Amino acid sequence: MLFHVSCRLEYAVRFPSTLILNVHVQQTESQSIVREQFGVDPVVPLENFTVPGSDNRFVRLETGDLQNLSVTYSATVDCHHDILSARTLEDLPVGDIPAEVIPFLFPSRYCQSDKLSRLAWDLFGKQPTPHRKVVAIVDWIHANVEYLSGSTDSGTSAYDTVIQRTGVCRDFAHLGIALCRALNIPARYFTGYSYLLDPPDFHALFEAYLGGRWVLFDATRLAPLNGLVRIGGGRDAAEAAVASVFGGVATRSMNVECRLGEGQAFVPLDRPDLNQAAVALETTSDSAAD
Amino acid sequence: MLFHVSCRLEYAVRFPSTLILNVHVQQTESQSIVREQFGVDPVVPLENFTVPGSDNRFVRLETGDLQNLSVTYSATVDCHHDILSARTLEDLPVGDIPAEVIPFLFPSRYCQSDKLSRLAWDLFGKQPTPHRKVVAIVDWIHANVEYLSGSTDSGTSAYDTVIQRTGVCRDFAHLGIALCRALNIPARYFTGYSYLLDPPDFHALFEAYLGGRWVLFDATRLAPLNGLVRIGGGRDAAEAAVASVFGGVATRSMNVECRLGEGQAFVPLDRPDLNQAAVALETTSDSAAD
Amino acid sequence: MLFHVSCRLEYAVRFPSTLILNVHVQQTESQSIVREQFGVDPVVPLENFTVPGSDNRFVRLETGDLQNLSVTYSATVDCHHDILSARTLEDLPVGDIPAEVIPFLFPSRYCQSDKLSRLAWDLFGKQPTPHRKVVAIVDWIHANVEYLSGSTDSGTSAYDTVIQRTGVCRDFAHLGIALCRALNIPARYFTGYSYLLDPPDFHALFEAYLGGRWVLFDATRLAPLNGLVRIGGGRDAAEAAVASVFGGVATRSMNVECRLGEGQAFVPLDRPDLNQAAVALETTSDSAAD
Amino acid sequence: MLFHVSCRLEYAVRFPSTLILNVHVQQTESQSIVREQFGVDPVVPLENFTVPGSDNRFVRLETGDLQNLSVTYSATVDCHHDILSARTLEDLPVGDIPAEVIPFLFPSRYCQSDKLSRLAWDLFGKQPTPHRKVVAIVDWIHANVEYLSGSTDSGTSAYDTVIQRTGVCRDFAHLGIALCRALNIPARYFTGYSYLLDPPDFHALFEAYLGGRWVLFDATRLAPLNGLVRIGGGRDAAEAAVASVFGGVATRSMNVECRLGEGQAFVPLDRPDLNQAAVALETTSDSAAD
Repeated sequence: MLFHVSCRLEYAVRFPSTLILNVHVQQTESQSIVREQFGVDPVVPLENFTVPGSDNRFVRLETGDLQNLSVTYSATVDCHHDILSARTLEDLPVGDIPAEVIPFLFPSRYCQSDKLSRLAWDLFGKQPTPHRKVVAIVDWIHANVEYLSGSTDSGTSAYDTVIQRTGVCRDFAHLGIALCRALNIPARYFTGYSYLLDPPDFHALFEAYLGGRWVLFDATRLAPLNGLVRIGGGRDAAEAAVASVFGGVATRSMNVECRLGEGQAFVPLDRPDLNQAAVALETTSDSAAD
Repeated sequence: MLFHVSCRLEYAVRFPSTLILNVHVQQTESQSIVREQFGVDPVVPLENFTVPGSDNRFVRLETGDLQNLSVTYSATVDCHHDILSARTLEDLPVGDIPAEVIPFLFPSRYCQSDKLSRLAWDLFGKQPTPHRKVVAIVDWIHANVEYLSGSTDSGTSAYDTVIQRTGVCRDFAHLGIALCRALNIPARYFTGYSYLLDPPDFHALFEAYLGGRWVLFDATRLAPLNGLVRIGGGRDAAEAAVASVFGGVATRSMNVECRLGEGQAFVPLDRPDLNQAAVALETTSDSAAD
Repeated sequence: MLFHVSCRLEYAVRFPSTLILNVHVQQTESQSIVREQFGVDPVVPLENFTVPGSDNRFVRLETGDLQNLSVTYSATVDCHHDILSARTLEDLPVGDIPAEVIPFLFPSRYCQSDKLSRLAWDLFGKQPTPHRKVVAIVDWIHANVEYLSGSTDSGTSAYDTVIQRTGVCRDFAHLGIALCRALNIPARYFTGYSYLLDPPDFHALFEAYLGGRWVLFDATRLAPLNGLVRIGGGRDAAEAAVASVFGGVATRSMNVECRLGEGQAFVPLDRPDLNQAAVALETTSDSAAD
Repeated sequence: MLFHVSCRLEYAVRFPSTLILNVHVQQTESQSIVREQFGVDPVVPLENFTVPGSDNRFVRLETGDLQNLSVTYSATVDCHHDILSARTLEDLPVGDIPAEVIPFLFPSRYCQSDKLSRLAWDLFGKQPTPHRKVVAIVDWIHANVEYLSGSTDSGTSAYDTVIQRTGVCRDFAHLGIALCRALNIPARYFTGYSYLLDPPDFHALFEAYLGGRWVLFDATRLAPLNGLVRIGGGRDAAEAAVASVFGGVATRSMNVECRLGEGQAFVPLDRPDLNQAAVALETTSDSAAD
């Protein structure tokens, strides 16, 4: 499936600052980049880099004395979303989790799984398999947390959301991750471009490690899982922010787009179902772990 | 300098569980392992592993149906602690921080640097250099937080400690890390064996990335920095716990030792001083980033 | 019903301090004191007092230079516990709540009802009457929070308990109060001697204001509601502590007893039931509000 | 000194609701009401009331099916602000604090004095007298917390402010109260009309109980203490909100005014000074405690 993704970010700079952006899509086994373009106007010094243990493609910019900065990115990406049978997602005891996946068992800034342990076991511990536990978590979040723009901020974490019960996609993802980890199921944050997301924006959801694969889950249910194009991931939003600012820079506008390639026919994946046992997923190249 | 380090950990097992231990010392440019022994009694299946982006040497154990488990580790380690002149620790703008160091700028589970930003800039922002900022942070923690065994637990984070003002070495380290990151200085958690620590125990402190090197700081001032033998590190204690339990396992006893090699003469490093410009440090091999 | 209640509190004094104790039972319409004795050994200056808006009977002690202090209290109390039909507990809109009850609608130190609002309405909002809402709250707390001695401390509040899901009677009471207030049902903290509580101790529970009366609820279900002898109450434990210390005083031991009067036959009140519509309650004299 | 105070509050009502307003000025020994007018448009059922232990003058309104509601209040008030010599503010051990003042020693919803104890003693414990402790608290808040409109919300408490270091008058007051109580100095919340406050609004500050009197302190230093007209007070903002809504009501606009009476000459009280030993204060009638 071919997608055209793009974003345009406008910044106001108050004093010379460094920006770290994470808007490039990943190159993975299931996602190949056909064409890609990145530009900054005016031109400033920039550096592409990745960090150990991650495939996120970061760009670091120096604003210098500029007052305004405009960043544009566009790409054409060929994505293969596997649909798995739930039966194939066998139990994986902690003892068999691959080494590179183990960090995603531990609590992180916005996913305090250590504090949610009893709650998670009380609510979901009786589900017979890890896959059913995660499905129950997603159902519970969808039923109990209201999607409400502006109801949270960059300091909001899973510990808050489980009580306040409002949030945006980022908060839904953090709560899902925290509850999975509390049940010893590895989980990580996922950011991407999202086809049919309305209004268009970057999207955040989460992956759980089930049966040896990273499987996508979206408790917001705002967009089809097979319309996602992966930008990146990490323990939580602290590691996968669209933009991290070191200095004095404010966002003036942000436009995001995800269109279908010409001539493509898209069949939105029905919400994954327990009986039908279908889940959407995306395999990363996991190069850092090879 | 040659050190003999060892630990003996006794566990009571309630039901079949997985344990992930992090007691092995690291092999780095400045720390070479002369001899090493690890044993579990009774013998159980175990696996050694590392995770991407880290040199920590983990061991994963399966308890099976055992009720008691005893783990012993001992090593002889040759450590070189550089003493640096503070003048060499030049400023390093965010734009020049190496890619593999950037993750240590972001908030983590126990180091909510995003919430401490204003406090950190108010207290330490006027210090002229990053090195002086970190020294001022360490002085401030030492003066304002009381070391008090049992005053905190595994859920305590920097956000709590900055108010409650009591803690153990782990809490001192977390607060130091959070305040550094709030000032855009990369900082990470350090665990190790510690010569002259009284009572003997594993020790935790932190490293700040200054002038292109990871420099050791210990706001507890309980032991000389040149008596440290590195076990591991990470964003915070969530990534470098001595033992992570998945299942039902309780610690029954823990004995830790760090002795000087025979015939070695030890001159404890006086507390690093701003004028004298001396700091103790230890270089990791940073293999994951090569 | 006649009860003999008593307590013996032993204190170690480190330096001259003030103690405020709240161990005397209240004199109310439904609870009359037949005999009462209070002693401090050695004898120290003391003062009995009440505070506006409360019937709690406080004693203030000055320890002076003493190193040890022993407080004893005993009373024989005649208590009338009404059993009400739930049908009589009619709805009472906020507009009809008496003035003196209104403070118990607001959040307090350990009962952050303002933060639990959405959660409370989601879980209990559909219950048709205030009485059924409170019964549902009590059922939910009983089912979801585990009574676990030592699992919390004096800083634990309803916000913590709703996530951590363990606590002691004080925590069960705070959570019940917070959830009631979040639903615009006035609720207050209740402390007392408790017949058949095992092990014997002071007990804490809560009252909700329903149909114009303060009705007792105990989410711990550890003791019969018609075996309670009221000491006091307030917004939460901050206003009804057994002992508040100003200075340096540590508790060395605490013994509490509640026995049935001679020749009395006690029929423990079965757990209040929705259909049977029975609730235990105790009317205060509400003198402060007259 | 004669002041004309007034406010106009406009509300949008979504469904039938109850409002509790606290905009009437208090009648005390040092503040007498010359003229007063209160109106609601359209006319709705309303009730004036006070609660035990407080002199706040509340009004309860029923909106019924109205969609818009406008509340106006105006008063002419004669206020006597005493200027005290600091020398008269003698130490008052906890043992001598009047009974009705004792509740203001305990933690409350927004003033978690129990959690700030060590911090308060570390920062202010060495000050020789309670008055100097409070002056040091006010100086510290003024120096370390930035007044920043919109930086906090109704859930923000002293625990947050001591870290985040931004807030509005309400937050400055809560932090002052919490720090006083942590030092065993009774403190309470004060709301009022404020002459020369710019922009005009309701104001919040705090009173500490020193030498047997309630003494005014304002860590924002935004308006002269002798230009205050008291509306009310309490443990914290939970007890003295301008408006408490039970139902669905949103504020559409709020206008507040405080003018000097005709022909009055106002000499703003210079900021209270340690050497000059002058403080502004206002005595309540304390009728509830009589």
